Amino acid sequence: MPGLDLTADVVALTRAICDIETVSDHEGPLADAIEAAVRGLPHLVVRRYGDTVVARTELGRDARVVIAGHIDTVPVNGNLPTRIDSIAGEEVLIGRGTVDMKGGVAVQLKLAAEVTEPVIDVTWIWYDHEEVAEALNGLNVLSQTHPEELAGDFAILGEPTGAGIEGGCNGNLRAEIRTFGRRSHSARGWVGVNAIHRAAPILDRLAAYEAATVEVDGLAYREGLNAVGISGGVAGNVIPDECMVHVNYRFAPSRSPEEAVEHVREVFEGFDVRIVDLAGGARPGLDVPVARDFVAAVGAVPRPKYGWTDVARFARLGVPAVNYGPGDPLLAHADDERVPTDQIRACEAGLRAWLTRA
Amino acid sequence: MPGLDLTADVVALTRAICDIETVSDHEGPLADAIEAAVRGLPHLVVRRYGDTVVARTELGRDARVVIAGHIDTVPVNGNLPTRIDSIAGEEVLIGRGTVDMKGGVAVQLKLAAEVTEPVIDVTWIWYDHEEVAEALNGLNVLSQTHPEELAGDFAILGEPTGAGIEGGCNGNLRAEIRTFGRRSHSARGWVGVNAIHRAAPILDRLAAYEAATVEVDGLAYREGLNAVGISGGVAGNVIPDECMVHVNYRFAPSRSPEEAVEHVREVFEGFDVRIVDLAGGARPGLDVPVARDFVAAVGAVPRPKYGWTDVARFARLGVPAVNYGPGDPLLAHADDERVPTDQIRACEAGLRAWLTRA
Repeated sequence: MPGLDLTADVVALTRAICDIETVSDHEGPLADAIEAAVRGLPHLVVRRYGDTVVARTELGRDARVVIAGHIDTVPVNGNLPTRIDSIAGEEVLIGRGTVDMKGGVAVQLKLAAEVTEPVIDVTWIWYDHEEVAEALNGLNVLSQTHPEELAGDFAILGEPTGAGIEGGCNGNLRAEIRTFGRRSHSARGWVGVNAIHRAAPILDRLAAYEAATVEVDGLAYREGLNAVGISGGVAGNVIPDECMVHVNYRFAPSRSPEEAVEHVREVFEGFDVRIVDLAGGARPGLDVPVARDFVAAVGAVPRPKYGWTDVARFARLGVPAVNYGPGDPLLAHADDERVPTDQIRACEAGLRAWLTRA
Repeated sequence: MPGLDLTADVVALTRAICDIETVSDHEGPLADAIEAAVRGLPHLVVRRYGDTVVARTELGRDARVVIAGHIDTVPVNGNLPTRIDSIAGEEVLIGRGTVDMKGGVAVQLKLAAEVTEPVIDVTWIWYDHEEVAEALNGLNVLSQTHPEELAGDFAILGEPTGAGIEGGCNGNLRAEIRTFGRRSHSARGWVGVNAIHRAAPILDRLAAYEAATVEVDGLAYREGLNAVGISGGVAGNVIPDECMVHVNYRFAPSRSPEEAVEHVREVFEGFDVRIVDLAGGARPGLDVPVARDFVAAVGAVPRPKYGWTDVARFARLGVPAVNYGPGDPLLAHADDERVPTDQIRACEAGLRAWLTRA
């Protein structure tokens, strides 16, 4: 593995990072490369926790911002290595991770190296396992084992926002909805009870579900309830005795996690419901002075964030947090994931302007 | 390997055969023993094909019956050697193969040896590889390499029927029904198209499907259309772009395979349907005189057979065929596979009565 050159152009750096495949649970090589690249920088105090790397300035500033980005991606689907192309006259970098969120990570790495005397102390965090279960999430693990590393007056996640500022985020719940039946040979299906057929109302309710849009602190949050998986079956000649529908509920930050659980139980009343993942949302949190300064320096109009991001983790810790990163979030996880290179440069410029302002 | 004593009591003969383990692809030793036992009988012409043994009378009778049984079993699961026990006052022989179908094979072997001048010419066939892929099935191989060995006016398979007569069998079709959508991050589910939600009507149609009961040649065949598997999903935070429902259609023997395909395509109209397995059924074939004689001699009321068996192979060759053997078919392949010994004796008596009738 060649080392990362943090002085390179930010787009070249994004490519270099994307071309190191880091599907969740395989972040090690990139974490190694990041650690090696920042370990030698004299203005940073660097610590490694698993595949999470923390690099802090210790300048004794009045305030501290935590700027974080995850280094894992969803599975690659023939969309690596990256390539540069032009779409409608705009230069884009195409490939897994370009949007979610190695563009943001590249901006952070470059500024971590180059902005040696920021006007606010910075805790840079690059972490693992964001795309999988909450329990594995590197930032979650860090918040439990070393909560002091997340301390700050404000936090910025580099999740894709189209280089705008997105405040707060929806909550995230996953549940397994199960039906049960009785096995029999399918030649005598009437002796058994078909668990897959019994799952029909689950899919009907999902297909008919109308998601709400909820206004919170002036921003409108759109909810969603979706099947993200389904499984069942024993063999080609056996009536199945179990079927499981894996559902994902994204809920507005005005709902508590408990209210979200109750809602899902209501929607799937009559079925076996097991909550397997639950994370509350975060209200926008743009009313603190350091957040207002950041918004002013970047010059963007804040919008709501739909996806659950780790800003909610900071919100739980009492740290206001926003998302700010290159890339259209609608292309996150898409096979044709791609980021306009201008957005990567815009985020670099915006964040640099704020960290170095007079 | 001690030789088989075909003059022994039929239950003792069944035990002896069962205690020779013949999981599919390991039939050799039993085929050797059978060949050795019938090779010396002067009233039979014996030929061996792989692990299939054919023994024919050549008495110049007006008609010929093919009486066949497979000598392989599904895997042994701690249920050999056989043992005799009493359940609810009934003597039972317990162990792998007692039901499927070495009881029937024992009856056939004993009568092959003892009924030296049957009133109808008999082609006895003991064959291998019935419990595995169609291409390996000994009867299938014989039908392709030496179809003349299967020629006859009627055929009897010794598959378990509880010592009753089960005519014909349902056809068997398996298909994969697919829906497609468009992936997106589940935080913005409205950008994607959820293929699992789109599968709701497939499950609705299956749940609402009322299987027909079709009368064929006087017997009522109960059909069935069932999901035997379902799958879909990419990750816990991705709107899935594909969902597949694996369905199994058991269709009355009055329907051709082509009609069965058409029916399934109609039921799932609007969806992507791929047929992955298709085997036609067999009409009961009880209207030919030789079959009527057999039914009268056994004194049983014919019932439909639901499971697919090798009678369908004879039906394809234009030979009416029925199943007649000891054991409850619901116990076939079960770990507690067991046959009432009275049923073995009843089948011996019934078949002997017909073959020796005045």
